[in-house]
Amino acid sequence: MLLVLYVIAITAEAMTAALAAGRRDMDWVGVSIIACVTALGGGTLRDVVLGHYPVTWVRHPEYLWITAGAALLTALVAPIMRRLRSIFLWLDALGLVVFTVIGCQIASGMQLPITVVLISGMVTGCAGGMLRDILCNDIPLLLRKELYASVSVVTGALFLGAQHLGLNLNLSMIGSMAVGLAFRMLAL
Amino acid sequence: MLLVLYVIAITAEAMTAALAAGRRDMDWVGVSIIACVTALGGGTLRDVVLGHYPVTWVRHPEYLWITAGAALLTALVAPIMRRLRSIFLWLDALGLVVFTVIGCQIASGMQLPITVVLISGMVTGCAGGMLRDILCNDIPLLLRKELYASVSVVTGALFLGAQHLGLNLNLSMIGSMAVGLAFRMLAL
Amino acid sequence: MLLVLYVIAITAEAMTAALAAGRRDMDWVGVSIIACVTALGGGTLRDVVLGHYPVTWVRHPEYLWITAGAALLTALVAPIMRRLRSIFLWLDALGLVVFTVIGCQIASGMQLPITVVLISGMVTGCAGGMLRDILCNDIPLLLRKELYASVSVVTGALFLGAQHLGLNLNLSMIGSMAVGLAFRMLAL
Repeated sequence: MLLVLYVIAITAEAMTAALAAGRRDMDWVGVSIIACVTALGGGTLRDVVLGHYPVTWVRHPEYLWITAGAALLTALVAPIMRRLRSIFLWLDALGLVVFTVIGCQIASGMQLPITVVLISGMVTGCAGGMLRDILCNDIPLLLRKELYASVSVVTGALFLGAQHLGLNLNLSMIGSMAVGLAFRMLAL
Repeated sequence: MLLVLYVIAITAEAMTAALAAGRRDMDWVGVSIIACVTALGGGTLRDVVLGHYPVTWVRHPEYLWITAGAALLTALVAPIMRRLRSIFLWLDALGLVVFTVIGCQIASGMQLPITVVLISGMVTGCAGGMLRDILCNDIPLLLRKELYASVSVVTGALFLGAQHLGLNLNLSMIGSMAVGLAFRMLAL
Repeated sequence: MLLVLYVIAITAEAMTAALAAGRRDMDWVGVSIIACVTALGGGTLRDVVLGHYPVTWVRHPEYLWITAGAALLTALVAPIMRRLRSIFLWLDALGLVVFTVIGCQIASGMQLPITVVLISGMVTGCAGGMLRDILCNDIPLLLRKELYASVSVVTGALFLGAQHLGLNLNLSMIGSMAVGLAFRMLAL
């Protein structure tokens, strides 16, 4: 379940990267790099700060290929799609809530204090998109819309609350992600 | 003593972050994030590069709350204060010299070579403010004023010199910070 | 051999940093900082992400002095030199291919999967120059020219291929770097 969600999230983030990079006429190596930084950067930063080695993609390099593949496919298909802006924001929001839950889950498994668990979710959820925006020279979504980092905090808090009340893991994940996603969508 | 100084420095840095973020109309989550990055980012970068785990705020999450609290209070009070620019520069200089001494102290305790100890002071002192400037899209103070990184080097060198001569720890800290602060103030 | 190449590469990267910083009227501390970040930043990022501690310059602080020295000398000499732009690009390309091979070599020695070895070469080769461009507020070369990261991938793949075929280490290094350099030069 967590694995399925993870693959969905890196695919979604890779697609946002391809859409952002596409607006700047980058070549395919550039698109792949931006996609990997966006999809795997948040998790890498979290692992490095928490000293949680080896980082995910060093142990599972196949995620690098999934990410690059999703990005290149998106770059090919993008010119014939419409409403790219709302697709971009929707995928970005999906990546945000899924990564937040995964980040909380990992820090939780390391027995870290609850504040650090929430920060871990926030870093995993927000940092990749932020790096994408910095590399593409866009104003970071994080600093533009007020309900972005807040969505991550709410999602993480709901997930931890549900876990604390002894709810089923999958239920806690789906529930907190659904609320977070709805919250983000309302803000747009 | 070191702890008292540390709390003063993160409070000062959090306040500079609130002042910088306030100029850009961020909401309170944004202000808290910028404050934590500014106040704790330099130390985190130092710990990650030196492999000094766990990083400070993972072990003491209360520092995250102090930082966010100081920033939000400052954001509330700022509109009724005058001469914000000089308060900003003064607080930033205070954070710079205190963090420099703390960074030197930590690397010193790890028995690292003296060049690395000075660099550790510089990273701890300068990196947080630099990240703040990058996130807020200001031109980094570090690259604008010539006597910024130099202040950190001088403060660190004086502190290590005083320690080498066998002076009392508290005296070495206070002395080197006072000279560094005077030096920075003269440069403005 | 690897050591000689390493010293050549950090010198070359330090010189590019001095040329870039010189265009912005930085003082000598600023130039030294930019030079160290450019020459040692890629390797530091690689070591931190791979958990390969201690990072190079913590164990060998003399590299910091070589870097700063090369940068300051370049800053002194630059005003009387001509054709700075092509010297800059040539030195940058040299640093790129040498660091790529070194990065692959280190990850290879840690028995990491081949995709990670190539990424390690790319991070070591490209990240320093990218940090330089971000700090100096230039548009990163990486995102501007299409044959930049690609040069790193080609150089790394040739090196690994040659090693896999059982060629002599020095021969593999020289050969892959020569092809990579030629490739980059053709792209300009």
